[in-house]
Amino acid sequence: MGSTGDLDYPQIILQYSSGFLVSKVMFTACELGVFDLLLESGEPLSSGAIAAHLGTSSTGMERLLDACVGLKLLAVELTEEGALYRNTDISNIYLTKSSPKSQYHIMMYYSNTVYLCWHYLADAVREGRNQYERAFGISSKDPFGAMYRSEEEVLKFMAGQNSVWRICGRDVLAAFDLSPFTQIYDLGGGGGALAQECVSLYPNSTVTIYDLPKVVQVAKEQFIPPDERQIAFHEGDFFNDSIPEADLYILSKILHDWDDDKCRQLLEKVHKACKPGGGVLLVESLLNEDRSGPLETQLYSMNMLVQTEGKERTASEYSRLLEAAGFREIQVKRTGKLYDAVLGRK
Amino acid sequence: MGSTGDLDYPQIILQYSSGFLVSKVMFTACELGVFDLLLESGEPLSSGAIAAHLGTSSTGMERLLDACVGLKLLAVELTEEGALYRNTDISNIYLTKSSPKSQYHIMMYYSNTVYLCWHYLADAVREGRNQYERAFGISSKDPFGAMYRSEEEVLKFMAGQNSVWRICGRDVLAAFDLSPFTQIYDLGGGGGALAQECVSLYPNSTVTIYDLPKVVQVAKEQFIPPDERQIAFHEGDFFNDSIPEADLYILSKILHDWDDDKCRQLLEKVHKACKPGGGVLLVESLLNEDRSGPLETQLYSMNMLVQTEGKERTASEYSRLLEAAGFREIQVKRTGKLYDAVLGRK
Repeated sequence: MGSTGDLDYPQIILQYSSGFLVSKVMFTACELGVFDLLLESGEPLSSGAIAAHLGTSSTGMERLLDACVGLKLLAVELTEEGALYRNTDISNIYLTKSSPKSQYHIMMYYSNTVYLCWHYLADAVREGRNQYERAFGISSKDPFGAMYRSEEEVLKFMAGQNSVWRICGRDVLAAFDLSPFTQIYDLGGGGGALAQECVSLYPNSTVTIYDLPKVVQVAKEQFIPPDERQIAFHEGDFFNDSIPEADLYILSKILHDWDDDKCRQLLEKVHKACKPGGGVLLVESLLNEDRSGPLETQLYSMNMLVQTEGKERTASEYSRLLEAAGFREIQVKRTGKLYDAVLGRK
Repeated sequence: MGSTGDLDYPQIILQYSSGFLVSKVMFTACELGVFDLLLESGEPLSSGAIAAHLGTSSTGMERLLDACVGLKLLAVELTEEGALYRNTDISNIYLTKSSPKSQYHIMMYYSNTVYLCWHYLADAVREGRNQYERAFGISSKDPFGAMYRSEEEVLKFMAGQNSVWRICGRDVLAAFDLSPFTQIYDLGGGGGALAQECVSLYPNSTVTIYDLPKVVQVAKEQFIPPDERQIAFHEGDFFNDSIPEADLYILSKILHDWDDDKCRQLLEKVHKACKPGGGVLLVESLLNEDRSGPLETQLYSMNMLVQTEGKERTASEYSRLLEAAGFREIQVKRTGKLYDAVLGRK
C-alpha cells in the first residue's frame, strides 16, 4: 500500500471500491442457503443442482458460486460432468445456520439493515445523525425504537448480536478473573449468548439479563432454555427504571450506543447500585489513542453515527467516563479480536 | 485464509462483512470533497476546519477522517493544536477530482447507482435479471434505457467509464501493435477517454466514436475538445443502424453487456463491415478458464447480472464468439490490470 506500484496502478483503491460487492456476495450466498445446502448434501453439487434446490435462476447461481470460489468460501472441482462446488472449512464453521459458531444472523442484519442505512453515509456525515428515516422511513429520534420497530426486527437484531458473542464472548469474559463476582447483571444483555458464555466460564455465577420487556420475552422464548438455572431475567429500561444491587454489571456494546452525557448518567446509576467491592465490565471495541486504528473499530464508529446516538471510544475515554462515575482501579485488556474489556471497581 | 488461525477466528469473514463499510467510507470522503479540499489547502487541516469548509457535522467528519486514516487514504499528525489530516499520495493521484488519473466519477457511479442495485443481489440471483426496477423504479427491460434514464445519468456513466480508461486504457491498446489500423471505430465509445488514449498511442490513427445520439452529444460537449482532429463521431445504435467500413473496430466493455445471441449478432455485423485484413479488438475483463478467478472479474460478472443482460467471459468464450462470426487469428493478451485485450482478424 502506498508503494510505487500502487501509485502507478491503484490496486488498493480498486479493492476498496469492490468491498461492497464482496460483502453482498457472501451475504447473498448465506441468505439463499448455499452453505446450508452444501453442508447437508455431504457431497459436491453442480451449479444447476444448487439452483434447482434453492429455486434460483441458473445464470445467477453459477456466478454467485464462482464469486464465492474467488473468495475461498467455496471450492470448485472441474469434473467430466461439469463443475462441482463444496464448502470450504471456514464456510462450514461460520456461514451455515446450524453451526455453533454461525455468523449467519449477523450477516443477515448487516445485509438487510446496515447496508441500506449506509447508503446514506454522506447524509449522516453532513447531519451528524442516524439515517433510519431515509433508509426505512422511521423516525430516528429514538434509535432503539427504530431498531426494534417490529418483533421480527427485535429477533433479527438479537440473533445477530448472539452470533458476535459466539466468536468473541469467551475472550472478553476471560480477559479478567471474574470468579469473585457471583451475582452478575448483564445490562442490555439481549439474546443472552454472552450470559451463556459467562455462566459456562464461571460456574458459580448467576447472570441476570436486564433488558426491555419485549427483548426479555424473545430471549426467553427463543434463546435461553427454561432449564438454564444460572440465568435469570429482569424487565426494564435501565435509563428510566431502577437497577438492582449486584456484584458485577456487564455493559457489552451499550455505551457505544450513547453520547457522553447518557453514558455518565448510566454509569452513575450503576455505581450507586453496585455493591462495595463490586465492579463494572465494559465490553467494547477500543480505538487506538493515536487515531491510527484499528480500522474495524473506526468503521464501527461510523456505524454508530449511521445507526445510533453513540460512537466508539479509546480506552482513556472509557476510563474517564468510569472515573467520573466514581469507579476506580480501572484496568484495560485488549483481546486482539473485535471486542475488548475494561474493568472498573467500586 | 483457511489457516488454523482463521478456523479459530474468522478474520477473513469479518473483513468481507466490512467490505461495504470500507467502500462507502472512501466514496463518501470523495463525495463530500475531503481529498479535493486537502489538495487545495496545501497544508494539513483539523477535522473542525474540514467540517466547517465542507458544511458537515463535526462529529461525522472526525470519524470519517479517522476511518480514512485507517484505510491509509489520509495521514494524521497529532500536534499541540490537535489532530491534523493530510492526503496520502494515492489519494492525491486517484481520489481528487482534478487529477488526470482521477477515479472520482467512477466512485460516484458506484456509490449512488451500483451500491443500491446490489442491495437486491439476492433477488437478481433468484430471478436471473437486473434490478433497476427494485432499486430505482425503472423498467428493466432495456438496461441502457434504464442506465441512461436522464441526461445527468448519461453524464455520470460516461464520466465514470472515462475514469476507468485513464488507468487501464493504455495497457489494453498497447497489448497489440495496432499501428497498421489507421481507420478505427470505437463502438459504444462513450466519453471517448479510450479514443483519446488510442490517438495518443497511435498518432496515425483516426478514431470514430460510434454511440447513441444523446451519448455523442454529451461526448462532444463535455469530453472531447473541438480541435481534436483525430477523433470523429457517428451517431447510431449499432444493433439497429448500419456500421460503416473501417480497419479496426474496438468493442470495449460492450459484449459483457449482452447475452451470447446478441454478441454473435453484433460481431457478425462488424465482420461484414470490416475491411479485409482489418480486425476487431475486444477489451474485456477475462475470467480464468478453471473458474478460479480473478475475483474482481467474478464480482463484475455478478454486476452484469444486477445491471445488464450480459456477463463476463473466459478468453475461450470470446474466441468462440469471434470465430462464429468469421474472425480468425485470434490472439489474447492479459494485461495484469482490470481489462484485457482480444484481437481477431478478418
